[in-house]
Amino acid sequence: MPKSKVSVFIGLDLGGTDLKYGLVNSGGKILVSKKIRARINEGQKILAGQLHAAAGELMSIAKQKGWKVVRAGIGSPGAVNFATGKVFGNSPNIPGWEGVNLKKSLRRLGVPAYADNDANCVALAELLFGAARNVQSALCVTVGTGIGGGLILNEQVYRGSSFSAGEIGHTTVVFEGKPCACGNRGCLEKYASVSALLEAAGESEEVTVQTLTDAAKKGGQPALEVIGRQAAYLGAGLASAINLINPEKVILGGGFADVYPPFLKLVEKEVRQRAFPAALLKLKVVQAKLGNEAGLVGAAFLGKKS
Amino acid sequence: MPKSKVSVFIGLDLGGTDLKYGLVNSGGKILVSKKIRARINEGQKILAGQLHAAAGELMSIAKQKGWKVVRAGIGSPGAVNFATGKVFGNSPNIPGWEGVNLKKSLRRLGVPAYADNDANCVALAELLFGAARNVQSALCVTVGTGIGGGLILNEQVYRGSSFSAGEIGHTTVVFEGKPCACGNRGCLEKYASVSALLEAAGESEEVTVQTLTDAAKKGGQPALEVIGRQAAYLGAGLASAINLINPEKVILGGGFADVYPPFLKLVEKEVRQRAFPAALLKLKVVQAKLGNEAGLVGAAFLGKKS
Repeated sequence: MPKSKVSVFIGLDLGGTDLKYGLVNSGGKILVSKKIRARINEGQKILAGQLHAAAGELMSIAKQKGWKVVRAGIGSPGAVNFATGKVFGNSPNIPGWEGVNLKKSLRRLGVPAYADNDANCVALAELLFGAARNVQSALCVTVGTGIGGGLILNEQVYRGSSFSAGEIGHTTVVFEGKPCACGNRGCLEKYASVSALLEAAGESEEVTVQTLTDAAKKGGQPALEVIGRQAAYLGAGLASAINLINPEKVILGGGFADVYPPFLKLVEKEVRQRAFPAALLKLKVVQAKLGNEAGLVGAAFLGKKS
Repeated sequence: MPKSKVSVFIGLDLGGTDLKYGLVNSGGKILVSKKIRARINEGQKILAGQLHAAAGELMSIAKQKGWKVVRAGIGSPGAVNFATGKVFGNSPNIPGWEGVNLKKSLRRLGVPAYADNDANCVALAELLFGAARNVQSALCVTVGTGIGGGLILNEQVYRGSSFSAGEIGHTTVVFEGKPCACGNRGCLEKYASVSALLEAAGESEEVTVQTLTDAAKKGGQPALEVIGRQAAYLGAGLASAINLINPEKVILGGGFADVYPPFLKLVEKEVRQRAFPAALLKLKVVQAKLGNEAGLVGAAFLGKKS
């Protein structure tokens, strides 16, 4: 009897800098992982061609290995119509990306193809293989250059009425505060993203997440204050979301959460001081489990539990 | 052949001042409506007795009229465990109310009994008979002394992991702003509730919603400014919620929304300026349809679509 073929899933995770892509097995394990610089400033056609080529490359590798490709998915910044695969929202990090049909880049592979917003892919990966397993409802928050969010309700990724749910980074925390690229003012990501943090820590110096973390670990007061303030803003934004959707878990990833363990506890403390006691009864604030690979893994499993 | 009995539903709506109660037919029409002053400062037992007596009175009326009582429900301030009927959250307007089992007050009626948070009852009434009919997702917001909210997702009232979802009144809009009774600072209801508005309009004068509305209708600049500022705060809080849950509708009731028609347009304008364009694609901002009776009607139908 011939040995049955190994099933693999193609995942592409497009970011503002890199395109990560790979093959994932049915247990969520990455078997092949690649990363190239995304050609984000060369127009829609060139970038879409890059996605198409990456998917084709993965298909060839799978064939070579004798693996069976089950499906393929792409995660992208911006609002993505999950039904059609079209990017319809403005994505400030990728100029001219609006209007592209992401599913088309995968269609010639001959397997079911999916596309979604990158934060939704992260949430799906945590739901299937990470910190949101066996959880009814969760808010997945990734703190990076911006602050991304994906929502899990009733054990599914919740996309909302026009595929835009989960955008916790654009919660107003400071009424008429700093202007944000989204057009609003006082958005959470202007105060609590890694970029906002580094700006607050001093523009002129060579400040990075690493130098700040090192200083904080040594008990450096200025670094601790900057990090504490970021945790407070994040706590305020999260408390608002918790009061509204009363999730079972808040899953935090990126930035400090990944490299400075006390940060999670700081954020949790702020959340517990600020949110409704009744909304905190079942709440757990935990770290994301899948790290930088969540987007790729989630993209590979789009269409499952979503 | 005997005429089949008319089916009626018992609803009780407990507020910080009054207890409204009545009989509702299967079409959501109120057949009998009563209102008494709630004995909120006389301890849990007295108030629970009042609920029990009101429900008994309605039962007697139904019997007299030859109507068949199908079920009974209570809406109450505070967090209510929808499964057990117990009030478990602190409700600042009703001292000592925590711990009471609301279902018990209805149990002797011999019909299925339900209890829920009052804002959830409002949302359910709008879902079954009002502005949220045939809508997948909606946020129902009532602006009064405080700001209450109820969430509809997937055509159901969404209660969250510990029956506390929907609390949009406690969205932080001003980081480290005015202290709120909930323990947090800068909550939306400290800036955009009717109480906050009247406070902003001048504590010493005889300012009411009516006098402010009259002044605004005559083009009075100070009144228009106060109302405009309230709409801006409300717009900021709603935009945060819209970015997070991307609902089909925002349904606004209470306060100015009920007596000053331009208010809805003002709030909608603020929302459209502040929320993500992608999250606004399907959004409608509309007025609540059931007014002051929504709580009673929703309580009567608890257990249906919820």
